[in-house]
Amino acid sequence: MTSKLEMGPHPGNSWEASIAWGKSLFHPNIRQNIFLVLRDCHGLVQVVIPQDETAASVKKILCEAPLESVVQVSGTVISRPPGQENAKMPTGEIEIKVKTAELLNSCKKLPFEIKDFVKKTEALRLQYRYLDLRSFQMQYNLRLRSQVVMKMREYLCNLHGFADIETPTLFKRTPGGAKEFLVPSREHGKFYSLPQSPQQFKQLLMVGGLDRYFQVARCYRDEGSRPDRQPEFTQIDIEMSFVDQTGIQSLIEGLLQYSWPSDKDPLVVPFPSMTFAEALATYGTDKPDTRFGMKIVDISNVFKHTEVRFLQDALSKPQGAVKAMCVREGANYLKKKDIESIRKFAADHFKEEVLPVFLKNKENWNSPVAKFILEKQRLELIRLMEIQEDDVVLLTAGEHKKACSLLGKLRLACADILEMNGMVLRDPALFSFLWVVDFPLFLPKEDNPLELESAHHPFTAPHPGDIHLLYTEPEKVRSQHYDLVLNGSEIGGGSIRIHDAELQHYILATLLKEDVKLLSHLLQALDYGAPPHGGIALGLDRLMCLITGAASIRDVIAFPKSFRGHDLMSNAPDSVSPQELKPYHIQVSWPADSE
Amino acid sequence: MTSKLEMGPHPGNSWEASIAWGKSLFHPNIRQNIFLVLRDCHGLVQVVIPQDETAASVKKILCEAPLESVVQVSGTVISRPPGQENAKMPTGEIEIKVKTAELLNSCKKLPFEIKDFVKKTEALRLQYRYLDLRSFQMQYNLRLRSQVVMKMREYLCNLHGFADIETPTLFKRTPGGAKEFLVPSREHGKFYSLPQSPQQFKQLLMVGGLDRYFQVARCYRDEGSRPDRQPEFTQIDIEMSFVDQTGIQSLIEGLLQYSWPSDKDPLVVPFPSMTFAEALATYGTDKPDTRFGMKIVDISNVFKHTEVRFLQDALSKPQGAVKAMCVREGANYLKKKDIESIRKFAADHFKEEVLPVFLKNKENWNSPVAKFILEKQRLELIRLMEIQEDDVVLLTAGEHKKACSLLGKLRLACADILEMNGMVLRDPALFSFLWVVDFPLFLPKEDNPLELESAHHPFTAPHPGDIHLLYTEPEKVRSQHYDLVLNGSEIGGGSIRIHDAELQHYILATLLKEDVKLLSHLLQALDYGAPPHGGIALGLDRLMCLITGAASIRDVIAFPKSFRGHDLMSNAPDSVSPQELKPYHIQVSWPADSE
Repeated sequence: MTSKLEMGPHPGNSWEASIAWGKSLFHPNIRQNIFLVLRDCHGLVQVVIPQDETAASVKKILCEAPLESVVQVSGTVISRPPGQENAKMPTGEIEIKVKTAELLNSCKKLPFEIKDFVKKTEALRLQYRYLDLRSFQMQYNLRLRSQVVMKMREYLCNLHGFADIETPTLFKRTPGGAKEFLVPSREHGKFYSLPQSPQQFKQLLMVGGLDRYFQVARCYRDEGSRPDRQPEFTQIDIEMSFVDQTGIQSLIEGLLQYSWPSDKDPLVVPFPSMTFAEALATYGTDKPDTRFGMKIVDISNVFKHTEVRFLQDALSKPQGAVKAMCVREGANYLKKKDIESIRKFAADHFKEEVLPVFLKNKENWNSPVAKFILEKQRLELIRLMEIQEDDVVLLTAGEHKKACSLLGKLRLACADILEMNGMVLRDPALFSFLWVVDFPLFLPKEDNPLELESAHHPFTAPHPGDIHLLYTEPEKVRSQHYDLVLNGSEIGGGSIRIHDAELQHYILATLLKEDVKLLSHLLQALDYGAPPHGGIALGLDRLMCLITGAASIRDVIAFPKSFRGHDLMSNAPDSVSPQELKPYHIQVSWPADSE
Repeated sequence: MTSKLEMGPHPGNSWEASIAWGKSLFHPNIRQNIFLVLRDCHGLVQVVIPQDETAASVKKILCEAPLESVVQVSGTVISRPPGQENAKMPTGEIEIKVKTAELLNSCKKLPFEIKDFVKKTEALRLQYRYLDLRSFQMQYNLRLRSQVVMKMREYLCNLHGFADIETPTLFKRTPGGAKEFLVPSREHGKFYSLPQSPQQFKQLLMVGGLDRYFQVARCYRDEGSRPDRQPEFTQIDIEMSFVDQTGIQSLIEGLLQYSWPSDKDPLVVPFPSMTFAEALATYGTDKPDTRFGMKIVDISNVFKHTEVRFLQDALSKPQGAVKAMCVREGANYLKKKDIESIRKFAADHFKEEVLPVFLKNKENWNSPVAKFILEKQRLELIRLMEIQEDDVVLLTAGEHKKACSLLGKLRLACADILEMNGMVLRDPALFSFLWVVDFPLFLPKEDNPLELESAHHPFTAPHPGDIHLLYTEPEKVRSQHYDLVLNGSEIGGGSIRIHDAELQHYILATLLKEDVKLLSHLLQALDYGAPPHGGIALGLDRLMCLITGAASIRDVIAFPKSFRGHDLMSNAPDSVSPQELKPYHIQVSWPADSE
């Protein structure tokens, strides 16, 4: 017994189905009949109960069943009378004339109607997740996720010879793995760790000759309460031997193109590519939203000989620059309070001045900020930045990276404001993919800028053109890391890995000063004939969130945790008795006992 | 750049490939050339280095590369000279005449040769797992596993409308979940639990209207050191709404038939079915190996009027019975020491006497054991059990279940002995599936037989025919649970679930005396219009182990734990500093501090 709505009922067919969750919508009784709309996982169908004696018991069952009860109904598919079709409903041309009905399970009074779920607080939705899942949007999101992943598997497994290989989640703590959940074992003082990704395993699989690996991998990261992150998440994890950066990139382009939902515009490949340096200079971020312009422009040259003191100061410092961004029609869309909040943001978060400048708008050209710009400079800027009447230029001066980052944030903030005020800037049907490449291999440590840390992870291979710098100026070495960005969100990242044990040892021990003993198995593996290899991981939750246009990744996960990491339905995490902790040789340090 | 062995090289084609792990097998130089065999993940190919000046550098590179180094080679595919083909090798008709060669990564001296890996101790194999994975058998096992799972997904997702839905692994402790790993959270005294299965989630998905769910689900069970178990394992997890037992069974039969490896005989469906009572009576177990006979026979009636004291005693007790099993040709295959070890096993493990009886073998008929069997009884037994010359009957008397269990164990032990002694009993190409159904819903608790516990889990629905007994004699209620058995191993189990909140509450609270608060979310969900539903889970590791004929489930898992739960390659679980435990508010109780 199963619902037959999926088969598209046709007039004249007999119809037997278990339709769940009847939505007893009593229509105005225009035809002396009683109508109700039943719902199953495939959609809605209108059911009509004949007004004669034979249907009395059916009528009683269906009319008395509370909303969201489960009923089983059989009947005949008939065309709706002319003029009563419902064009908005996929089954709107037909209805079911009921013959038999059975109440399979009655529903208690709901805390609220299913259709109103999305309007409720998220806490309530998560507490009654099993009801929230009945909503059209959650059904769509989860079923689409399943379909997209299935297509990805077909592409990788059936079309490209990848093997789907499961790797352990009870693993050893990795060096610096502060964000890894611990799992106490029954051995005194010994713990497993839930890995943040299968990184080590997938590299070991390459050493093991499983040359094309993928896995839809569950990963874990204990980040406390970060909004829109989950303590467990899923990535499409891929690794290949005998591959270069281009090889991985075209594989992923093909993968996304193949698995892209058929109700969206097909993807155009290859995706554009941009270096990290260019992304920073042009968009002020390593994950540019390329759906719209408003690029950052370096206008240092315009002010090379300026007499204005704060510009002189900025330009005289190392990496000092003057940067600007043009907000199109800003004079019409940015209100005074918007400009104020932009300047306040710059001061609060970057300790920088941002000056709004109107270069062609006569009215505003008289504003006090304009006085430091000479007429020659004004014309040069208009030319350089293609300024139109009513555009607003946001100008800042400071260290290159900081100035770009600031304008990058303001670019997104302005886009929000412009859209809130009615401009159409980011087309919701547009999916703008971008590769960002040539990242630095190392970054100075935040707490000690004289030491280096990996920009991504220590297994990333250096850029072939920069290997010689490893031994002289390692901070200048670019990596073979690549990020995939979609509409301004990083949805994937990967790299070509180091396959040479000696180089890996040098980077770990000499440059990063890590305890190599913790990675001795990996170093040893590289010594036993490791092939050149590389890979990537795509964040599935984030990708599906962008594809479905969901407000949060929680809307593409069946049972997500709240932003504090709680399961609001079952109340996890929960207390455990000391007795249950005993086999694991641990005890809770209550505030009084802790140091 | 990728290996092209997969394309089946043909003579005349040019050939460019990165072949990993060259196996420098220097053949006797019968053609004045140097031969070596290279291996990639698709197989082996013979490479020939011309003995002329132009090939000097290629020769140097290939001949000096240590075993298992990674080389990249290009050349031309040529036919081997007549008479030098190797029929045992899939590429045995061709060889590659090398043009260029490059050493991509050199291999250190191996601790042992790859082909010898399986002969080494398992600890060594697990320590160097990345080398062990290069063996033919591990490559075959893991790739086949990937293919079988892919076919299962196609069947479920593409052919039967199932949605692949991920459920959380950081969950709440379930009542009685003593085997669940704990994961400390950053909240004082609060722990997540790694679930033993997605049972609760899949039922909640049914309540949520996702009417056909499946997941290749990672599950966790902390069983300490049990041989051939893993702390994490994988199950094909399935749940459907509006389904009955037959519906699930035929779905699974179709699933296995569809995904069955093409190099095995196709499966014949439907699989036979047997009640739990019949399985116990006939095979002494709930997971009968039906590849061979040697069934248990109840011979109580033959001895109904016996004067023999120990038989009288056994028969007079509740459930008392005399049971026998015929070991075909036992007189030829069972040696005296085998019989002794059988009798010792019965005495040690069951505190029961097992008597070997020769009923038709004249020689042995004079044995002292025979004296208590009257001639009439002997003839009756020969008829009943179809005894042949040289058969040995193993006879025991006692409580029905215990006697059957004992003979069930002896049946398997005898099969091992007979096969060790040369009899062919269990065809390795035979896959004998069996459904076992009609299990009891409850069992008496081991430590307190007056109380009941669930035979499987508390969400299992009672057999429709026995519901009335729930309120009077619950111990007699059969369940709607079903197990799938393959060659004597349980590879799956499932049930139709309770969808009625009141019934579920009665079973949990009144019959099982569980704390219903811990399951309040599930009870509440059932109240909101839960559809009738049921499901099953197949143990993927065990299934693949049986399909591949592997010695252990560890041979179908890429990175298994040792039987003590250790990762011998990375040394997990490992110690963690008190500093790292601090965010989780736990400390290790060292032997001195513990009670």
